Amino acid sequence: MDLQGLRKWHRRISGELDSVVAFWLQHSHDEEYGGFFTCLGQDGKVYDDLKYVWLQGRQVWMYSRLYRKVPRFQRPEILQAARAGGEFLLQHGRVALPSQKCAFVLTRDGRPVKIQRTIFSECFYILGLDELGRATGESRYQREAQTMMEAIVRWVREDPSELGRPQLAGAAPHDSMAVPMMLLNLVDQLSEGDGEAASQFNELGNWAAQRILMHVQKNGTAVLENVSEDGKELPGCLGRQQNPGHALEAGWFLLRHAQRQQDSALRSQAVEKFIKQPFHSGWDPEHGGLFSFQDVDGLCPTQLEWNMKLWWPHTEAMIAFLMGFADTQDQELLELFDQMAKYTFDKFHDPEAGEWFGYLAQEGKVALTIKGGPFKGCFHVPRALYMCEDILETLIRETESKSGK
Amino acid sequence: MDLQGLRKWHRRISGELDSVVAFWLQHSHDEEYGGFFTCLGQDGKVYDDLKYVWLQGRQVWMYSRLYRKVPRFQRPEILQAARAGGEFLLQHGRVALPSQKCAFVLTRDGRPVKIQRTIFSECFYILGLDELGRATGESRYQREAQTMMEAIVRWVREDPSELGRPQLAGAAPHDSMAVPMMLLNLVDQLSEGDGEAASQFNELGNWAAQRILMHVQKNGTAVLENVSEDGKELPGCLGRQQNPGHALEAGWFLLRHAQRQQDSALRSQAVEKFIKQPFHSGWDPEHGGLFSFQDVDGLCPTQLEWNMKLWWPHTEAMIAFLMGFADTQDQELLELFDQMAKYTFDKFHDPEAGEWFGYLAQEGKVALTIKGGPFKGCFHVPRALYMCEDILETLIRETESKSGK
Repeated sequence: MDLQGLRKWHRRISGELDSVVAFWLQHSHDEEYGGFFTCLGQDGKVYDDLKYVWLQGRQVWMYSRLYRKVPRFQRPEILQAARAGGEFLLQHGRVALPSQKCAFVLTRDGRPVKIQRTIFSECFYILGLDELGRATGESRYQREAQTMMEAIVRWVREDPSELGRPQLAGAAPHDSMAVPMMLLNLVDQLSEGDGEAASQFNELGNWAAQRILMHVQKNGTAVLENVSEDGKELPGCLGRQQNPGHALEAGWFLLRHAQRQQDSALRSQAVEKFIKQPFHSGWDPEHGGLFSFQDVDGLCPTQLEWNMKLWWPHTEAMIAFLMGFADTQDQELLELFDQMAKYTFDKFHDPEAGEWFGYLAQEGKVALTIKGGPFKGCFHVPRALYMCEDILETLIRETESKSGK
Repeated sequence: MDLQGLRKWHRRISGELDSVVAFWLQHSHDEEYGGFFTCLGQDGKVYDDLKYVWLQGRQVWMYSRLYRKVPRFQRPEILQAARAGGEFLLQHGRVALPSQKCAFVLTRDGRPVKIQRTIFSECFYILGLDELGRATGESRYQREAQTMMEAIVRWVREDPSELGRPQLAGAAPHDSMAVPMMLLNLVDQLSEGDGEAASQFNELGNWAAQRILMHVQKNGTAVLENVSEDGKELPGCLGRQQNPGHALEAGWFLLRHAQRQQDSALRSQAVEKFIKQPFHSGWDPEHGGLFSFQDVDGLCPTQLEWNMKLWWPHTEAMIAFLMGFADTQDQELLELFDQMAKYTFDKFHDPEAGEWFGYLAQEGKVALTIKGGPFKGCFHVPRALYMCEDILETLIRETESKSGK
């Protein structure tokens, strides 16, 4: 791809970011209770008013980040909605004070409906509140994020009992890649532009990166979602499970960490093992798109949606390829970005009502027409567009300055 | 359909029952620890040795029932495997004695991996052990089933605290149709041929039937999966959720109950509201087959598999139509049986390796090649074949005697 190609994608992605943000601004705000509706039909209409905490935290993050970093989004309505979402989380997210445990889903007015015995609601609570603190300049949001971070690190590294999962004799402890991935993402978030935090979280970041690397198995040929605590393969479906989109997301998390640490060996591992390889094994050669789940030994996965094409692996892949190219100048990665972005815009983008579909059948036909739901909100699509826009700007600037244009 | 049509289906179904039972006899027995492997690939090969308690109980039931009721299956190897499965359940099913709570999944050697905070593992534990007691004549199995039944009734009707679900302010109590359905199915099982048990469970059976009837909503035009405790519609996706296969299964549970109670009004409700109507609204007019989930207001469901075609709604529909026809002599039901059985044999049956596929994409293409997994075992397919064979035999006999053939 040449300069013209980069400019073309930059224009398309910028326009799409405007359109996607407009969709959420128009349809998702709960003016009465604060926070966001995320169960939105094709045309944006609310079909359920439940508030999923992952998606509340993610939208607070997205709005705050856009406000803080992208001049054209520095608009009062965006910050005000982010703040109303942050206040909703502060008021209702934690369900059994003084415990740090958060709900998974709340009623519209903030009463808990369900609690998951994992760390993820809490992770997105941190992500949203830390970024809101940066956007508003109010330290109380970041203080709350910091306190929650301490709880999560304690649950993961010392004592998970507060999560409420029973210890069962047949459930061997194992490392699910999502856990160190989230921690690495949070280290990235909390360390930005803060030397003190960066050194505070340095060891945790390295620990999380090493845990993620344990998931490279099968003589370095595959990323497995679950491994034993000491980095060995596990038996059964759990041990053979692969999630190409997750590996690609871990790839760009690792790449950012490697850049911060100036660790060139890790940069290369991130690109080769977590970005290129999962793409090549996870891409559907028949119909295009990334499979949702695979079995590393080629058996049939047990997840019903294994061959469906979900939006988020594709948006993560766009980020991973473009960030990988910016880091390595490896043309293959730029071509992969082009291939992935074409497929993604062609299949997921909804030219009729805006925003993107989330769930396609294997052949690429839209299977669910919803724009948001229990797991899809204002996050993966605008995050990818925002990050790709940013990287493309840098690439265009560099190419122009090299070529004197 | 005429006598010849009935005979043709009887032949096909009997042959298929032989073949399906042979598949499980060949591939699923754990000779070392007892119990059954249910994670079986297309050719029957074990791809995971976890033991899901629902499927252990169901296979014990299926083997014991076939042994007890169908002369050609009265074979020692079948009873021996059922007994080994029952002993496995007795030894490992309950995970925290003296609590009655069962595991959801166990390791091959019986250590608990996961516990669900619902009643279903326990329900299939009862189903299997009661039938094993009938097949072996050993009352200790039925005594254990009886004790577990008391616990379940207590959890459902008096105090759910032993299930371990937290009481959350936003989670309004509601009636999920699966719960009274399971209770009605268990009343049917425990009452068979036992006047004392039948009168003991009479009130419970009527209660469960009334709870199921509460799920007829929208002026009698739809069966909803979840309603409030007092039989009102619930808001959101939860309230609008429909599951056509579940309604059809409830239909034949209700029909059997109505027959036992000689309740002709209930017989008609079972046929009209739970059998015909869910078929007409749940059948995919474009590609055939029953949808897995629907939204009663025509919105897009949030279940990723909503438009996939799963084996069990189709096997339940075969039973419901044939039982409905035997009860009413309504020719429409016989035609529906013919239509459903044709689709089901055509799409789910695997002529290559035997047994049936479980999961098709909307268009009818096999999406998962597994023959068994965490939710599919030796149950819905052979139960439907066994019950349809039995009903067809009666219908053929009656038709022959009427026509003097």
